[in-house]
Amino acid sequence: MTYREGSIYFDNAATTDVYGNPASPHALGVKAERAVRTASQKIAGLIGCREEEIIYTSGGTESNNLALLGAAEALGKRGGLILTTPYEHPSVLEPLRYLKSKGVFEVIERPVSLWQDYLGQNCALASCFHVNHETGDINDLGKIASLVKGANSKTIFHVDGAQGFCKTAMPLNTVDLYSFSSHKFRGPAGMGGLIIKRGTPIKPLMFGGGQQGALRPGTLNVPGIIETAEAVEAAFNGLKELSEQAEKVKNILASLTAVLKDVFINSVSSDVSPFILNLSFMGVKGETLVNALSARGVYASMGAACRSGKKGASPLELMGFEKERAESAVRFSFWKNTPTEAEAAREEIIKCVTALRNVRQK
Amino acid sequence: MTYREGSIYFDNAATTDVYGNPASPHALGVKAERAVRTASQKIAGLIGCREEEIIYTSGGTESNNLALLGAAEALGKRGGLILTTPYEHPSVLEPLRYLKSKGVFEVIERPVSLWQDYLGQNCALASCFHVNHETGDINDLGKIASLVKGANSKTIFHVDGAQGFCKTAMPLNTVDLYSFSSHKFRGPAGMGGLIIKRGTPIKPLMFGGGQQGALRPGTLNVPGIIETAEAVEAAFNGLKELSEQAEKVKNILASLTAVLKDVFINSVSSDVSPFILNLSFMGVKGETLVNALSARGVYASMGAACRSGKKGASPLELMGFEKERAESAVRFSFWKNTPTEAEAAREEIIKCVTALRNVRQK
Repeated sequence: MTYREGSIYFDNAATTDVYGNPASPHALGVKAERAVRTASQKIAGLIGCREEEIIYTSGGTESNNLALLGAAEALGKRGGLILTTPYEHPSVLEPLRYLKSKGVFEVIERPVSLWQDYLGQNCALASCFHVNHETGDINDLGKIASLVKGANSKTIFHVDGAQGFCKTAMPLNTVDLYSFSSHKFRGPAGMGGLIIKRGTPIKPLMFGGGQQGALRPGTLNVPGIIETAEAVEAAFNGLKELSEQAEKVKNILASLTAVLKDVFINSVSSDVSPFILNLSFMGVKGETLVNALSARGVYASMGAACRSGKKGASPLELMGFEKERAESAVRFSFWKNTPTEAEAAREEIIKCVTALRNVRQK
Repeated sequence: MTYREGSIYFDNAATTDVYGNPASPHALGVKAERAVRTASQKIAGLIGCREEEIIYTSGGTESNNLALLGAAEALGKRGGLILTTPYEHPSVLEPLRYLKSKGVFEVIERPVSLWQDYLGQNCALASCFHVNHETGDINDLGKIASLVKGANSKTIFHVDGAQGFCKTAMPLNTVDLYSFSSHKFRGPAGMGGLIIKRGTPIKPLMFGGGQQGALRPGTLNVPGIIETAEAVEAAFNGLKELSEQAEKVKNILASLTAVLKDVFINSVSSDVSPFILNLSFMGVKGETLVNALSARGVYASMGAACRSGKKGASPLELMGFEKERAESAVRFSFWKNTPTEAEAAREEIIKCVTALRNVRQK
């Protein structure tokens, strides 16, 4: 993929990257541009969209910001209502709160089950997760899309797919904007994308050399795009096997509810991702258990890494779980983990929870 | 740098990246956070800024947009004048034109030599390149800073350092905002940064999990940051040698002005980067020569890759060169190229230019 033996590269102001700059006019630039197109065609073919509907970004946060702030900018001063849920990822909630602060849009945070009261003529934009990052709950996108579009076909429907992309069925035909993050499925860090259905009103966040239809300018990250396409291919083709393995891993950890008393699975939907298991170990703070497990080489979290250290009600409380249960929640999330790992982790969890509960009782 | 042997990683919803997510609470997250701090300390120590003054972005385009749109947002509805030059990179000119279209700021594009008429009380922001991407002309940042700050100490001074960072002396103490792009000095694609002097008014372009002081949220690109620090170290420590070698390469190609008739070096300053040489071969279109050279394995460009295909006056015309000279310009840019390569390229250029001029005369 580098330039041919014996060639002389005097375009280092464009890029020193071995792949070349897809916007350069010489043979290496053309080759880089073709590599990007091939990658886009591969992704589009696998996930079921058009090649030109994929816009590459620096990750899930940029994708969500481009979707929400970009659509809002395109809708302009008309304003109206933006609908979302209270337990979205911060990269959805924070740009919407910014829009709210500007006074042009009203932003309503309600569970999807209550959306019907707000949909219709005045609803400019609706945004929800595909798979919840805390609990693994899967939203039925087809059903939500019918609800949103049935009330007003012009309402833009955005889905944050960071935890769903290549990890569950993606009914992309039902949504207008779908965000993804490459490092969530063994793709490269600092890469993501936004899938934009043709005709969706959207404006750029940044301005520059006109790359990607001027919607997201900047020299394309050619190696990142190629690695993303490879990761999509691997995840997509292996999805059935990966899901089955994750389900086994999840079931082993979920069996803790039968082994230890007062352990609960936190989820609110009938359909939950096999890649996420959120458990509350009553009487033990989530943070304490995460630290204790970390010291024993088991790495889990209290929920979104992006939320660490934030104040206020947690997403679990907003979903309706009581405070004590939310505070004792630990998220386990999987990707190619083995049942053997799960069994070893289960033993560590039993030891830690038992010890921490004993300490507390003394 | 991966987690320890035998450990079990159940935080794949945070990241599947082997480095871990610096915002994760467990030992691997802490290790990733330390790796980022070590990288920032290394860069800060080499280039002469504070560790916390470096904000990582997805590249030069984002850095320039964050600097300009972010400073404008911080300045708020006060508005005022923004000063820049007509031959900046599109990632500087386009966000400023966007700001102009919003009607809050007046934007003036003038050569730095004419800035003094516009500086002073009403000037909110001034932005110029460090090294021009078309010609290699180096701006005397210390002198410009004195001019800008002498007229109004509150005017924010932004410098687009994409072609200057680690390629020439960087008087960072004289500027408020300095943008860089990692892939311009053998760092990774899709990475860059903005150096923000403490106290400079600036707001984020995106909103999310609060990373990087909430000024640029999103999961940190840990491998990209580590590779950037390594590339800064290599470029910075090797700068004298690299510059001397580039100077030799440049001189070999510049000698074409003596070998072929009607060949001119395009630059306007007394101080020019050794890494860029812009030559006009009168009577031959730059694009034609770039294509002919590409077919012979010599890759050069007509100027900024980001400008390819754009209409309107070229930066060279805006610098005062006549249209024909601008249209026959070719940019050669260097990084670790050898004198042997330069000599071979010179022979190819002589052949191509002679042949193309002969064709034209028939």
